[in-house]
Amino acid sequence: MSSEFDDQTAVQELAAGTYRADLRPGWAVGAGLNGGYLLAVLGNAVRAASPGKPDPLAVSAHYLSAATPGPAIVTTRVVRDGGSVSTIAAELSQDDVPRVSVLATYGDLAGRPDEVGTTAEPPVLPDVEECPPSALAPPDFLAAVPLLERFDLRLDPACIGWVFGEPSGRGMLQGWLRLADGREPDPILLLSVVDVLPPVTFDLGRPGWAPTIELTAHVRALPAPGWLRVRAWTSNLAGGMFEEDCEVWDSAGRLVAQARQLAMLPR
Amino acid sequence: MSSEFDDQTAVQELAAGTYRADLRPGWAVGAGLNGGYLLAVLGNAVRAASPGKPDPLAVSAHYLSAATPGPAIVTTRVVRDGGSVSTIAAELSQDDVPRVSVLATYGDLAGRPDEVGTTAEPPVLPDVEECPPSALAPPDFLAAVPLLERFDLRLDPACIGWVFGEPSGRGMLQGWLRLADGREPDPILLLSVVDVLPPVTFDLGRPGWAPTIELTAHVRALPAPGWLRVRAWTSNLAGGMFEEDCEVWDSAGRLVAQARQLAMLPR
Repeated sequence: MSSEFDDQTAVQELAAGTYRADLRPGWAVGAGLNGGYLLAVLGNAVRAASPGKPDPLAVSAHYLSAATPGPAIVTTRVVRDGGSVSTIAAELSQDDVPRVSVLATYGDLAGRPDEVGTTAEPPVLPDVEECPPSALAPPDFLAAVPLLERFDLRLDPACIGWVFGEPSGRGMLQGWLRLADGREPDPILLLSVVDVLPPVTFDLGRPGWAPTIELTAHVRALPAPGWLRVRAWTSNLAGGMFEEDCEVWDSAGRLVAQARQLAMLPR
Repeated sequence: MSSEFDDQTAVQELAAGTYRADLRPGWAVGAGLNGGYLLAVLGNAVRAASPGKPDPLAVSAHYLSAATPGPAIVTTRVVRDGGSVSTIAAELSQDDVPRVSVLATYGDLAGRPDEVGTTAEPPVLPDVEECPPSALAPPDFLAAVPLLERFDLRLDPACIGWVFGEPSGRGMLQGWLRLADGREPDPILLLSVVDVLPPVTFDLGRPGWAPTIELTAHVRALPAPGWLRVRAWTSNLAGGMFEEDCEVWDSAGRLVAQARQLAMLPR
């Protein structure tokens, strides 16, 4: 019953507030490991440090240096243990070099009020079968981005002009997404999902690595099983940086995660 | 030349990485101090701890307990001093009770690339003179929200139906904003500005206190002098929480700050 995602984002407690992780190469994007993968590893450590409050409500991550495959240490500190929520600081480092620093507020999504009111509109996508799978990307691209083999990503054909040198210029990408091994979504997976799509700058004719400076994810509901719909977009390039908003919708039509990151524009 | 804002958000270094602040009652909203005010105090401490990198680029704040007027201590820790940016953790506490915990990445906005590309649209507002000043709010409302006397806030008349019991139901507020004492905007002030408007839930017919769980602000450019235009909106109420997005535009028509907070729905 174990999944690749669970196995490879697991942490092992070494002492109170200190966890060991083994970062795996399958989650790389170019020379570094994907920020969403690291966030799930951190999310598991925070979950372990937050008994009774298993779910990330708001996680703010500042990315400090590129992480590489191999051992990592996550330290956690309970900043405040409140009634229904707890805030925990966590840091992932490798050989004492800090990679990601996080502030996370956790709670229990199953125990929260049921009322929902959403004016945001879910992504309108062609059927899954009409969206080309990421596994069809050119072999040299897949070799550089093994992350894409961990997920089954089906980008909307209207968003993949950049693959053929014809970006739409809108700065928006959307598609269907699930883990390749079929493991169903949960709040920890959502922490990864908000950083899986290629940078939206691809759709602006600016391919290349766009390192994340900061990413904050809000998990708004427990996701239903099945395909997720993910949409990312940007509206402001300035100071050599851009923001990227991301929404994740579940198979029941609920907006289950909202995230925004500030990233460096590709050169 | 000194301003009320500068005087009342100032910090005094007690020791390396330890600052004292004197929180003032004029920035209260009901029983607690405004989260944006606290963010400016924290922002000044981080600036002091970040030589050569004076400007907040991304600041993530998790609010832990309500702050009250009186002395406060801000501790800072340099998480990473990178080339062009530094990341610093900071915490504001009163009598050893933590109030706000922050991760901040600072840099030098004046030294960043000039290119700007913005597809976001600035708020369309009537002239300043056609927007009623917040000083005209009922006296008992102003007494409960002295924050509104620190700023000159002119809400768009199309957004103030809630004052008369007729909220628009859109979940959007916008208006003109500047400090009442005329002090011009800068990046530290923008950290306050993203949390000055009343909760957008007022416009949904849900008045009342909406405590912030987490707020992340991105300062995207040095603001020009003059009036700011501020717009806040929400698109998702779920789990007893809502997200509130905020954009701040300067008098030159630039999108100078983007923020999102996760807040508790008023009961």
